[in-house]
Amino acid sequence: MQLTILGCYSATPRTFNNPTSQVLEINNHIFLIDCGEGTQVALRRNKIKFNRIKHVFISHLHGDHFFGLIGLISTFSLLNRKTELHIHGPKGIKEIITLQLKLSKSWTSYPLYFHELESKEPQLIFEDEKVTVETIPLNHRVYTNGFLFKEKPGDRKLLMNEVLNYEIDVAYYRSIKKGKDAILEDGTVISNEKLTAPPIPPKSYAFCSDTFFKPDIIPQIKGVTGLYHEATFLETHQHLCEPTKHSTAKQAAEMAKLAEASKLILGHYSTRYGDINLFKAEAETVFENVVLAEDGKKINFN
Amino acid sequence: MQLTILGCYSATPRTFNNPTSQVLEINNHIFLIDCGEGTQVALRRNKIKFNRIKHVFISHLHGDHFFGLIGLISTFSLLNRKTELHIHGPKGIKEIITLQLKLSKSWTSYPLYFHELESKEPQLIFEDEKVTVETIPLNHRVYTNGFLFKEKPGDRKLLMNEVLNYEIDVAYYRSIKKGKDAILEDGTVISNEKLTAPPIPPKSYAFCSDTFFKPDIIPQIKGVTGLYHEATFLETHQHLCEPTKHSTAKQAAEMAKLAEASKLILGHYSTRYGDINLFKAEAETVFENVVLAEDGKKINFN
Repeated sequence: MQLTILGCYSATPRTFNNPTSQVLEINNHIFLIDCGEGTQVALRRNKIKFNRIKHVFISHLHGDHFFGLIGLISTFSLLNRKTELHIHGPKGIKEIITLQLKLSKSWTSYPLYFHELESKEPQLIFEDEKVTVETIPLNHRVYTNGFLFKEKPGDRKLLMNEVLNYEIDVAYYRSIKKGKDAILEDGTVISNEKLTAPPIPPKSYAFCSDTFFKPDIIPQIKGVTGLYHEATFLETHQHLCEPTKHSTAKQAAEMAKLAEASKLILGHYSTRYGDINLFKAEAETVFENVVLAEDGKKINFN
Repeated sequence: MQLTILGCYSATPRTFNNPTSQVLEINNHIFLIDCGEGTQVALRRNKIKFNRIKHVFISHLHGDHFFGLIGLISTFSLLNRKTELHIHGPKGIKEIITLQLKLSKSWTSYPLYFHELESKEPQLIFEDEKVTVETIPLNHRVYTNGFLFKEKPGDRKLLMNEVLNYEIDVAYYRSIKKGKDAILEDGTVISNEKLTAPPIPPKSYAFCSDTFFKPDIIPQIKGVTGLYHEATFLETHQHLCEPTKHSTAKQAAEMAKLAEASKLILGHYSTRYGDINLFKAEAETVFENVVLAEDGKKINFN
C-alpha cells in the first residue's frame, strides 16, 4: 500500500502547490482521491499511468477537491481511453460533469459511470476479492465523506515443509489456506495451526478531509494503518474551526490517537502559515508517528 | 499594448505547458482571453495582479479554453475580491459556473456578471473612452468567437510652438486636438494641419482561436497590429483541418498576409509535433513577422 500526494493545500492552487489530491495504490488498484485543479498535470509529473485509474473518489463539492475532475475526464477522452471510469462523489457531481460535456458537444471515448452519494451513514461503495471501500460521513459546511480503504484479510500461509511432511494432497491446499484443518487418508486430523502461519495483517487507509473534529467515526476507523486527517489550522486559530468546519493539527493527532492508527498524515494546510513543520510539531505533542503531506511525496505503510 | 502568453497548447494541459490563455494589456485594461485549466497559477507565476482583471473573454466551450474559469472565479472569492468581474462567453457559461457555485453552497464575494454570446455576426461587446472589443465569428465544431481589441484613435498632437505663436486661447485646445480649425479674434482661420500633428496610430489585436480557415473575417481585422491565429497543424496534416475545424500554420500566415497584419502570433499547437519551430518555419514561407506563443512569453507591438 502506497500513497502519493498530488496536492496538499487548502482553498486555492498556489504557484508551486496543488490543492487536495492523492493516489492510493492498494492491491493493484490505483485509486484517485479528490481532484483539485491541476491534478491531471500532477499525475503526469508523478508518472502515474492514467489508464490504471478506474475509480475516483470525491469527498465533497468544494472547488479545491474537484475542480480538476472535468479536465481529467476530458483529457482521458482526448487520449482515446477505452477503460471504464467510475466517479464516486456527492449528488450533483454528475450534473456538473455532464453539463460541461454536453455544452462542448462531446462525450467520453470510454464508459463513464457516476455513483452519487447522499447517505449520512457509512456505505460500502466498492468491493472486490481483495479490497473494500467505505464512506466515512464527515462534518463540513457541505455534504462530505471521507473514505476508508481496506485490504481484506489474506489467506494463511502454507508451511510447505509441514504440508509435504504429512503428504497432504494438493487438492486440500486452498481450504487449508482458508483456515481448515487437514484430514489424512487414515482419518487423522492435522490442525490448521500446524500447517499454516497467520496471514500478513491487512492494511487500511482512512482519508478524512474536510471535517470538524468528529470522534464518532473512531469505531469505524479503529486500528487503521494510515490515517490522513485534515489539519487546516493550528491551535492558535482553533476558534476558526467551528465556523469553517475544519480541524487543527492537534485535533487530527487526537483522532489518530483515539483510532490507534499506525501513522498519521496531515494535510489541507491553510495558506496563512509560512512553515508547514508547525503542523507536525503541534501534532507530535499528541501522537508520535506524524507525516506531512507534501506535493509529490510518496508514503509507504509497513 | 502588451500580450502575455499564459498557455499555448491545444487539447490538454502538459507537464510544463498550459492550454490556451492570454493576457492583453491595452490602455490600462488587463483583459484575460480564454482560461484553460491552470490559468490562475499561470497568472500568479507571471505576477499579474488578480484585481486588475475585470473582463474575461471566453472564445468557446471546449475545455482547453475554459476549464480554469471556475477555479479563477472561486479563488478571487476566497481572496475576498470586491472588484466586479465580467465574463463574456458563449451561452451556457453562466449555467456551468453558477451550478458549481450553487452546489458548493457559495457565491462570489464580488459582483459577477455574465455576458452570454450567441450572435453569429460581429458584436461590439465592450466600449469605453479608449478601447473597444468586438467578437469575430469563427468556424469551429462548437459556437466560437474570436475577439478584436482596438484602441480608439487618439487626439491629434498640439504643435505647441504654433499654438503659442498664434496666441490661441487654452479654451480651444480640446477642439483643436479633435481636429477642428482655430479661429482667431480677428476672424482669421488657422487650419488644423498647421497646429497639430497626427495622433499616434491606434493599435489593435485580433485573437482567433479555434477556427477553420475563414478569410471572410478579413474585412473586420484588416490592418490589425497583432493577429493571434491558431495553428493546430502543419500542412502535412492539412487533411485534419476540415473534420476538426482547425487551421495550419501556413493558413494562419495567409490570414495575416490578407489582413496586412503587422505581426502574427501562432499558438494552439497540436501536441503531436515535437518542435514548435516547425510552425514558425512553415508560416514564414508566407508571412515575415511571425512570433511563436510560448508559456510566459511577453509580446510587444510597436
